Amino acid sequence: MPSIETRLTKSLGIEHPILSAPMALAAGGKLAAAVSDAGGFGLIGGGYGDAEFLKQSFRDAGNARVGCGFITWSLAEQTDLLDLVIDHAPTAVMLSFGNPAPFAAKVKSSGAKLICQCQTIAHVQAALDVGADIIVAQGGEAGGHGALRGTMNFVPEVADYLTANAPEVLLLAAGGIADGRGLAAALMLGADGVLIGTRFWASAECLAPDGHLQAAVSSGGDDTLQTSTVDIARGKDWPPDFKVRVRQNAFTDKWHGNETALTAAIQDVADRYMDAYKAGDAENSAAVCGEAIGLIHDIPTAGELVTRIAEEARALLDQNRV
Amino acid sequence: MPSIETRLTKSLGIEHPILSAPMALAAGGKLAAAVSDAGGFGLIGGGYGDAEFLKQSFRDAGNARVGCGFITWSLAEQTDLLDLVIDHAPTAVMLSFGNPAPFAAKVKSSGAKLICQCQTIAHVQAALDVGADIIVAQGGEAGGHGALRGTMNFVPEVADYLTANAPEVLLLAAGGIADGRGLAAALMLGADGVLIGTRFWASAECLAPDGHLQAAVSSGGDDTLQTSTVDIARGKDWPPDFKVRVRQNAFTDKWHGNETALTAAIQDVADRYMDAYKAGDAENSAAVCGEAIGLIHDIPTAGELVTRIAEEARALLDQNRV
Repeated sequence: MPSIETRLTKSLGIEHPILSAPMALAAGGKLAAAVSDAGGFGLIGGGYGDAEFLKQSFRDAGNARVGCGFITWSLAEQTDLLDLVIDHAPTAVMLSFGNPAPFAAKVKSSGAKLICQCQTIAHVQAALDVGADIIVAQGGEAGGHGALRGTMNFVPEVADYLTANAPEVLLLAAGGIADGRGLAAALMLGADGVLIGTRFWASAECLAPDGHLQAAVSSGGDDTLQTSTVDIARGKDWPPDFKVRVRQNAFTDKWHGNETALTAAIQDVADRYMDAYKAGDAENSAAVCGEAIGLIHDIPTAGELVTRIAEEARALLDQNRV
Repeated sequence: MPSIETRLTKSLGIEHPILSAPMALAAGGKLAAAVSDAGGFGLIGGGYGDAEFLKQSFRDAGNARVGCGFITWSLAEQTDLLDLVIDHAPTAVMLSFGNPAPFAAKVKSSGAKLICQCQTIAHVQAALDVGADIIVAQGGEAGGHGALRGTMNFVPEVADYLTANAPEVLLLAAGGIADGRGLAAALMLGADGVLIGTRFWASAECLAPDGHLQAAVSSGGDDTLQTSTVDIARGKDWPPDFKVRVRQNAFTDKWHGNETALTAAIQDVADRYMDAYKAGDAENSAAVCGEAIGLIHDIPTAGELVTRIAEEARALLDQNRV
């Protein structure tokens, strides 16, 4: 099978234009390395700033060329973590959900590619202002944190914006992409590749609780919602523009729309939420996945997924479907 | 330029797999006919049940082969309008937003194709249960009324559902599609064609106020929102599952999130809203358009749009972008 060559594959020196998202608490070094070893490019999830987790993740990644992604507003509270990551010579550093300006110069001067994930055109301009090499246009159907735009039209709008303002900057599509159909569609929309979360979350290498994965793969795409309740329960102080998309469950049924009551009950709820999470209880803690769970029915290795997605996209592009 | 041949073009006997949406108060007979005359297929917007509007629309469509789309819950309040439409021998009848069961048999027995627009997998099953010939999978980025799913992943999930349950039923993608990139992407996702609203709304034949169109084409895709405020102001009793996506403006800034106050002030607000609408005031009445306004910068004829979209998609499919 010939690979799908784009500006992205040339820029990163990879075989397939497929990146795995730096999913907090889910994407460790083994997942990132598996994606890179299969010809894509894997990103470790910097999450909420656990230095030991990051060190372990880079150990787990071994000699694979991987990157690391940060929740930018969280990184701003522990800026030394960027130094820790850069000491491991990542191929790329990704910044999402916050102002990239305080960190961009350090990433760029390290030689790593700077990837900025964006949810609005204003975010794109802010990323260009600090020299982003790659823009991720993320639609709100994505799992985990995101905003409101739909991938189907946000990607071509960003493509037009880059063509007019920074044609050398590469573009990845994210949100709702889980197979070769999504990759082929993203290329048609003007992207140079894709950043995939949920599909790689439902993989053998994922660090999320197995009970969460099992519940998700038997759910459909109508079974997720964007909510702030999960962040309230976990004590994560997210900016209000970003909600987290999770699988709907007993917890969200009880608290979504009742955020004031949740906040009032938080001391009791927080402990029970964490206990449920540790137990892999998918009803009383939330499986963090996107609408694309409707396209996901198994939990293979991440490497198999890279091959599967690339082959399906290649076949669609070759046949044109028409 | 060769056309893009799909199951849809063969089924409807058209040249390009492009349908224009039956936009209430915007898509009359001239718009529908212009789309059909250019090789696509146009749908008259049945809207909120104005018999005179429907008669005029079919007169305006002349001899063009067109269809008509209804807001299903509204049609249920004036069921004789379906007879009026069927008397004009439409090529297809589309039902959206409500239970299609009371109307499906009459449509099918007339010889018209039954198109059902769906926002969830449960809607798809309900449409299959009554013999739908064509399913429209509509993502929430669409202009006008819609729900929550993202087009990018809802379309392939519906494609899989049809493959498993009703492989003979055709699939259209809707929501966020405004150009050849969107059409090509939709085909990659497994659709047989597209239903396009906002791009045809911003056309010379659209019946919406010119002030609305002008405001929209200078706006970006981040400038829309889903809201119930517009329906409250217009006195349209929409089911709560569906919000209307409009261009954000002074009206939505004032009332979105303040729906209780809006309802309390409705007698005063309603008149002012209608006056502003008639004046084409895009700040005090809402331009009904989707996120795809970020891809739209002009107001050409609908026929030119059909040609433009088909040519761009054909070129993308031929070059594979890679």
